[in-house]
Amino acid sequence: MSVLPVNSLDTPRFCGIPTFMRLPQATSLEGLDAAILGIPSDSGAPFRTGARMAPHAVRQMSIMLRPINPYRDNINVFEKLRVADAGDCSVIPGYEIESLARIEESVAALVQAGLVPCGIGGDHSVTLAELRAVAAKHGSLALIQFDSHSDTWDKYFGGQRYSAGTPFRRGVEENIIDPHHSIQIGLRGSLFRESDISQSLDLGYEVVTTDDMYEMGFAKLAARIAERTAGRPAFVTFDMDFIDPAYAPGVQTPECGGPSARETLQLLRMMRDINLVGCDVVEVNPMYDGSGQITALLAATVMAELLALLATRA
Amino acid sequence: MSVLPVNSLDTPRFCGIPTFMRLPQATSLEGLDAAILGIPSDSGAPFRTGARMAPHAVRQMSIMLRPINPYRDNINVFEKLRVADAGDCSVIPGYEIESLARIEESVAALVQAGLVPCGIGGDHSVTLAELRAVAAKHGSLALIQFDSHSDTWDKYFGGQRYSAGTPFRRGVEENIIDPHHSIQIGLRGSLFRESDISQSLDLGYEVVTTDDMYEMGFAKLAARIAERTAGRPAFVTFDMDFIDPAYAPGVQTPECGGPSARETLQLLRMMRDINLVGCDVVEVNPMYDGSGQITALLAATVMAELLALLATRA
Amino acid sequence: MSVLPVNSLDTPRFCGIPTFMRLPQATSLEGLDAAILGIPSDSGAPFRTGARMAPHAVRQMSIMLRPINPYRDNINVFEKLRVADAGDCSVIPGYEIESLARIEESVAALVQAGLVPCGIGGDHSVTLAELRAVAAKHGSLALIQFDSHSDTWDKYFGGQRYSAGTPFRRGVEENIIDPHHSIQIGLRGSLFRESDISQSLDLGYEVVTTDDMYEMGFAKLAARIAERTAGRPAFVTFDMDFIDPAYAPGVQTPECGGPSARETLQLLRMMRDINLVGCDVVEVNPMYDGSGQITALLAATVMAELLALLATRA
Amino acid sequence: MSVLPVNSLDTPRFCGIPTFMRLPQATSLEGLDAAILGIPSDSGAPFRTGARMAPHAVRQMSIMLRPINPYRDNINVFEKLRVADAGDCSVIPGYEIESLARIEESVAALVQAGLVPCGIGGDHSVTLAELRAVAAKHGSLALIQFDSHSDTWDKYFGGQRYSAGTPFRRGVEENIIDPHHSIQIGLRGSLFRESDISQSLDLGYEVVTTDDMYEMGFAKLAARIAERTAGRPAFVTFDMDFIDPAYAPGVQTPECGGPSARETLQLLRMMRDINLVGCDVVEVNPMYDGSGQITALLAATVMAELLALLATRA
Amino acid sequence: MSVLPVNSLDTPRFCGIPTFMRLPQATSLEGLDAAILGIPSDSGAPFRTGARMAPHAVRQMSIMLRPINPYRDNINVFEKLRVADAGDCSVIPGYEIESLARIEESVAALVQAGLVPCGIGGDHSVTLAELRAVAAKHGSLALIQFDSHSDTWDKYFGGQRYSAGTPFRRGVEENIIDPHHSIQIGLRGSLFRESDISQSLDLGYEVVTTDDMYEMGFAKLAARIAERTAGRPAFVTFDMDFIDPAYAPGVQTPECGGPSARETLQLLRMMRDINLVGCDVVEVNPMYDGSGQITALLAATVMAELLALLATRA
Amino acid sequence: MSVLPVNSLDTPRFCGIPTFMRLPQATSLEGLDAAILGIPSDSGAPFRTGARMAPHAVRQMSIMLRPINPYRDNINVFEKLRVADAGDCSVIPGYEIESLARIEESVAALVQAGLVPCGIGGDHSVTLAELRAVAAKHGSLALIQFDSHSDTWDKYFGGQRYSAGTPFRRGVEENIIDPHHSIQIGLRGSLFRESDISQSLDLGYEVVTTDDMYEMGFAKLAARIAERTAGRPAFVTFDMDFIDPAYAPGVQTPECGGPSARETLQLLRMMRDINLVGCDVVEVNPMYDGSGQITALLAATVMAELLALLATRA
Repeated sequence: MSVLPVNSLDTPRFCGIPTFMRLPQATSLEGLDAAILGIPSDSGAPFRTGARMAPHAVRQMSIMLRPINPYRDNINVFEKLRVADAGDCSVIPGYEIESLARIEESVAALVQAGLVPCGIGGDHSVTLAELRAVAAKHGSLALIQFDSHSDTWDKYFGGQRYSAGTPFRRGVEENIIDPHHSIQIGLRGSLFRESDISQSLDLGYEVVTTDDMYEMGFAKLAARIAERTAGRPAFVTFDMDFIDPAYAPGVQTPECGGPSARETLQLLRMMRDINLVGCDVVEVNPMYDGSGQITALLAATVMAELLALLATRA
Repeated sequence: MSVLPVNSLDTPRFCGIPTFMRLPQATSLEGLDAAILGIPSDSGAPFRTGARMAPHAVRQMSIMLRPINPYRDNINVFEKLRVADAGDCSVIPGYEIESLARIEESVAALVQAGLVPCGIGGDHSVTLAELRAVAAKHGSLALIQFDSHSDTWDKYFGGQRYSAGTPFRRGVEENIIDPHHSIQIGLRGSLFRESDISQSLDLGYEVVTTDDMYEMGFAKLAARIAERTAGRPAFVTFDMDFIDPAYAPGVQTPECGGPSARETLQLLRMMRDINLVGCDVVEVNPMYDGSGQITALLAATVMAELLALLATRA
Repeated sequence: MSVLPVNSLDTPRFCGIPTFMRLPQATSLEGLDAAILGIPSDSGAPFRTGARMAPHAVRQMSIMLRPINPYRDNINVFEKLRVADAGDCSVIPGYEIESLARIEESVAALVQAGLVPCGIGGDHSVTLAELRAVAAKHGSLALIQFDSHSDTWDKYFGGQRYSAGTPFRRGVEENIIDPHHSIQIGLRGSLFRESDISQSLDLGYEVVTTDDMYEMGFAKLAARIAERTAGRPAFVTFDMDFIDPAYAPGVQTPECGGPSARETLQLLRMMRDINLVGCDVVEVNPMYDGSGQITALLAATVMAELLALLATRA
Repeated sequence: MSVLPVNSLDTPRFCGIPTFMRLPQATSLEGLDAAILGIPSDSGAPFRTGARMAPHAVRQMSIMLRPINPYRDNINVFEKLRVADAGDCSVIPGYEIESLARIEESVAALVQAGLVPCGIGGDHSVTLAELRAVAAKHGSLALIQFDSHSDTWDKYFGGQRYSAGTPFRRGVEENIIDPHHSIQIGLRGSLFRESDISQSLDLGYEVVTTDDMYEMGFAKLAARIAERTAGRPAFVTFDMDFIDPAYAPGVQTPECGGPSARETLQLLRMMRDINLVGCDVVEVNPMYDGSGQITALLAATVMAELLALLATRA
Repeated sequence: MSVLPVNSLDTPRFCGIPTFMRLPQATSLEGLDAAILGIPSDSGAPFRTGARMAPHAVRQMSIMLRPINPYRDNINVFEKLRVADAGDCSVIPGYEIESLARIEESVAALVQAGLVPCGIGGDHSVTLAELRAVAAKHGSLALIQFDSHSDTWDKYFGGQRYSAGTPFRRGVEENIIDPHHSIQIGLRGSLFRESDISQSLDLGYEVVTTDDMYEMGFAKLAARIAERTAGRPAFVTFDMDFIDPAYAPGVQTPECGGPSARETLQLLRMMRDINLVGCDVVEVNPMYDGSGQITALLAATVMAELLALLATRA
Repeated sequence: MSVLPVNSLDTPRFCGIPTFMRLPQATSLEGLDAAILGIPSDSGAPFRTGARMAPHAVRQMSIMLRPINPYRDNINVFEKLRVADAGDCSVIPGYEIESLARIEESVAALVQAGLVPCGIGGDHSVTLAELRAVAAKHGSLALIQFDSHSDTWDKYFGGQRYSAGTPFRRGVEENIIDPHHSIQIGLRGSLFRESDISQSLDLGYEVVTTDDMYEMGFAKLAARIAERTAGRPAFVTFDMDFIDPAYAPGVQTPECGGPSARETLQLLRMMRDINLVGCDVVEVNPMYDGSGQITALLAATVMAELLALLATRA
């Protein structure tokens, strides 16, 4: 099995069945460092549904991307890091709890084989399943969460405990997130209750709102992230609604007034010294993305930067 | 509370918060004969999701419709029948079984108050909840199902028993459908297994495929429906994928080669002598309907014909 | 000035600023038999607005069409008939009455120069302005109206007499339509009032509903049209909502259950012996037409058939 | 009547007939401080039409928003301020002047009952009608206009005095705007005539172009607005084309090169000491907004910030 | 390698990287009877471009389809016939002649290994390349062409001989089509020149226009096709513009007034006794297909019927 | 022939067959200073196709623009400069090399008549044809390229030398670009090979990446451009993917993280002292632009700024 992507100077991008960045499909896990895993679940979505179609949409746009990252010393990510596309895990639409179990199982297979799982969601509830599988190997994780919402509410809709709005409370309760080495970045917008932000602080998270982020500056924030995680096994979860809806219209719960794509990518490219053991990009909803599919492209670009971060570490 | 729709010759259709056919919103159930109830659930959808947005979309297009039905002696449906828009029932997205319970409760409130519930789904699994509520009052029901699929499979995805593909097996098992006075109309297309159609026959249903329907002719089919239900309390469930995707692109599982809108409406307009105690129109998915929203309009028109059928009986 | 369209075998259709069927733009009216005139007015639209963009959209799709009509003895329409694209008349959006005056003036310029005006609307109210200009020369006209609605209501919204719902009452009152040689074809769907259809009969029109049309058959209907107009100066007005919304989703007030494109074109191609002195195709709304723009293409095809009918007469 | 919005943690956002921010519908005006009023008129639109559909679209997206405003001391806007959704006023499409009269009448009913009217347009001409109604109670008003165009032209299309391009000249002429305490913010882009900007200055307005705005900085501009209005009864009119088309594509006359959503919201959140007696958000056109409907969401967010500004004052 | 599709009752359709009907990807050609081959070329498209995206779009919608065909004795197509998805051949966009060479080479690899190639185009020019490869093995072929245009023009745009408008003239000239056992079905619409249809007759083809087709009836036509091809090695080429644009809006050159999906599928299902050695479905253009992607679904359904025809023979 | 645009205060923008900014169509070249030329070719596009529809789309949106430029001393561009819309050149879709020849010929006709050609592409390969025609008169040109990619690769897809990825290598080889007075601005994103950027430097270009651009500041960059071109005959080529996809989603190869519209227009408005002998705006793809068509509007605005730059020089 070749571990290099198809070269788009030889074969047009639109030729072939699309995998992430035209990487080979995983036929075995042996010898791999990381794998892309589609997580097509939206059973946790309290509002706009359709994220089940996201892994496919993100793959489709990822074929635009090239292997060399000029922001990290021109490394060829896929020469440093053996990555394959492991396809999608299976889910059970309409059965949130059962879907989380299926997802955990698929991620666990990767983790137990020594790979870094790189998830493409899916609504944000899928991250809980990923964290369970990763923490089973690495212990309680430092979470780096990019998101315009905290997702630390307790219950939804008459008491449901599993939803896109609750994973980062559950993760603390389940001891798979170490909140004291975790950080939530990008909160903004109107609130349900006065305590919407303090509930994260109460759980032990550090919270950097969108306004804080601009005040602090991106370089300082990148340094702060490394400091906060302190070299512990870290998981980056990137909710696309972190970014302004002009750049990422195709999400479940858009929140006006976020950073631009350029600012977002700058921040990611400045990140250093993260002991990355897993990551995901979630909450792309292609139904709301228009024919341009710019949210899917940006999600693919975010994942490519996370792979570059991982390759730098490797 | 006025029981007549807003007159679109006086106030433009686009003015006001849209209810079904610009009917009054129900503030109490007293004195009403029937109520429109939105059922915004898509937790049972195994493929394309988004039917949670359908009640809203169907209401939006229903404002095109007028109260007089020239195909049934020019009756003014809303003078014969006191109908209000009861809004939507609540659901729990991602929790299919819990959502069915909430839906049943809402429908039961209407049925117990003596109203005929007229549901706007929602994926087809919601019909099971409606049938439970209606059968609680009227006993085992004669089902008249318009659908390109039988929806009588047993289980999905590792054993789940509740899904848009199973309600009409469950209904027979739960004794709320009397299959021997029930009929499934419009099956067509490729099959999962050889038994896909015979499984309905085995349960006791009469099955009229799309091909049968054309062979028989619409007038004869309308007569056959009345004969089959034989005056028993009947529930009409209309899955929009009964109609060809050219006329109804906005559905979960489109099936090419169905009847036209004109043929469909003719059949509905020919139906007589049905003891209608409940009905629904399901599986509209506005995300796939384009800016024209012709599926939503056709769904609204189908519901308006069912109301006229009910008014004729009244 | 050449009077032949650009040849799409020589120059790709997408090259050049689009005129109707790639005809030359009129720089003078001399020597012309007919002219295409865009009438970009939607001030008469009581519901969906945007028909102001229709002339442009119809031109865009008309570039698909070719000059030879195989349904009328393979005539080359533009060798028989010298036709140019006269561009658009000006209108005053938001000022219905003033817009009708501007439209009438533009059409009158063509009519007075001896041309047959071929209008591309615009909402249906624009036809009143065209009829005024044409009747000024030819006297009271035989109207052949294809439409799912009668458009013979009296007033809208607090007494407004000019709207897309009233032109064919106004035209009779103004004596520019001779209802006794006129025919309305295609009415269907739900009604505002019991009298919605009889109001046309009361004015003197012959009315052929969609159901009547199928009962009668298209050949007989085509003959009946010629009989009814009896050789008098006739104006064909074609509202795109005559056709089913599957074929013509991009209209102001779609009405489910209409004829197909094939049936419609067959009827038009069967028409003979019409003393055509003017025609229009109205109520295209490109905003609701999707990227395929099939309504605009069908409208262009209808106009091409009307030109062929005119060429046959010439 | 409850005065609190439906809680989206209990009932999913997509359930129910949407009102602005899920507020109760006004059944009486008693005891209310403010009301949302849809103004579905686009008869004043000289270019892209469809703003008649905007109140509905803005309500649809407003269900995303939550009641607590963290940018103004975490106030719960709807505990401070009793607000209801008063539905839409009626209009007469195609009759600009008559529509303005109907709008004025509806707004006057709110104002005379002591409410602050919060309009959701509609094209920008509707603001003239609102100003007439508000000034009837409060006298000549301080206008705070966010807009990329001045809308102080004199006439359009052969002399029409009422249009989306003229309200702020008419308002000065009618003495309902006090230009010397008014300010226009955000003008930019190409001009019809050299005098396009000076015409506003000549009328007495203060003008802050988009370039001026960046030079001045947002904090200073917020202070300048308060200074200019000097505590007089003020009306904020927010034309969505103030913002760059990337953030607000769904408008009538987009103008490239405007501020971002974040910059816009920052400016609104910095505004203090405004004696707000009325406000509106206008020129949303959902037909051009894509499936993401980000313009409608941003418009809803702008209105939520204006309500917070009002609540702060209250 | 399994030769059965993924079961959509076990794993949701939206899970996994989509292949045609969820068939296995070909890792070798050994033991296969037929292969799906995407041909993503649109360099031959004289009008709307984008068919390069079609193989992907058709695969995406083909996941709706199930393996059992009830119209041919409930055969499980993939038990009768070992089929795999061979991915896409490579092409060189903007280089028509070079692209045809690449396509021919890919098809030849399949044919030489004894497989029946089942192409998913691409514009109609790709069929010439397929015919070359298939005829190299089977000799001059009987062509069964479903198409609203003859595609037998000689040259385009200053003398280019290879284009979507010319393959069936070239094929006769190259002796890879035997026109005397070939048939063109579905021609309709306006013409460039009087000879547009006779040019096919002159080459030796039998021509059945859309009107002829209805006159003859579908059963008789199906018989006529078998008769015409007389058991010789036959190639079916299906241009999606054969069908009316309401059912197939996403094509390069839509032609109003064609058959419905139901009529089309009936005709295909009636076909018997064809010695099928190759087939394709071409001219899907997903850019014009709307979010419903009904053209892509219908194209997939057509291909599934061709596979069933092949399985029947096998 | 008038040389002034139609006044949008007199005639609504949507009236009439659209030319660029409503300029007169060129009937002769005499007396003109510059001409807009549509170049509807996408045969050089290696990925998303559809730029053949761009000239039309850009014209459509350009009708929003007004003649006075307030950023250059309120000049009326069309009083300073006699400009007409010369329509489109013809191309041969699918034949890249032949298309370049046709384009060169059309541009040469303008250049030889003393006009400055202002091209609206088309994929980026068309610029090579324009440069050939312009250099034939003015000699080796100073190129000012705004682009997120260098387009200096050598070959594509098995050796093709002409493509949207190669024109600025070919131009240096053909001696029609003087790289030592040329500058490439805006490169960013992932790379095919480590040498992707150095290949431009090796050819002699100055390269300013997106990151460099922000570091340098726009004013300094504007000055640097003038310095680099040093008064030599200069050609500005503007690839719309220079700008972030949020502002320009409708392009062939979007690259996340670019400048905003405001930043872009600021840079263009600061440019001075350029001896402009030709320019183009390329790579608009309306198929991916959504109903808002904001990319087309921004492209039209960029061209209007280039015309203003030219008018300033004149």
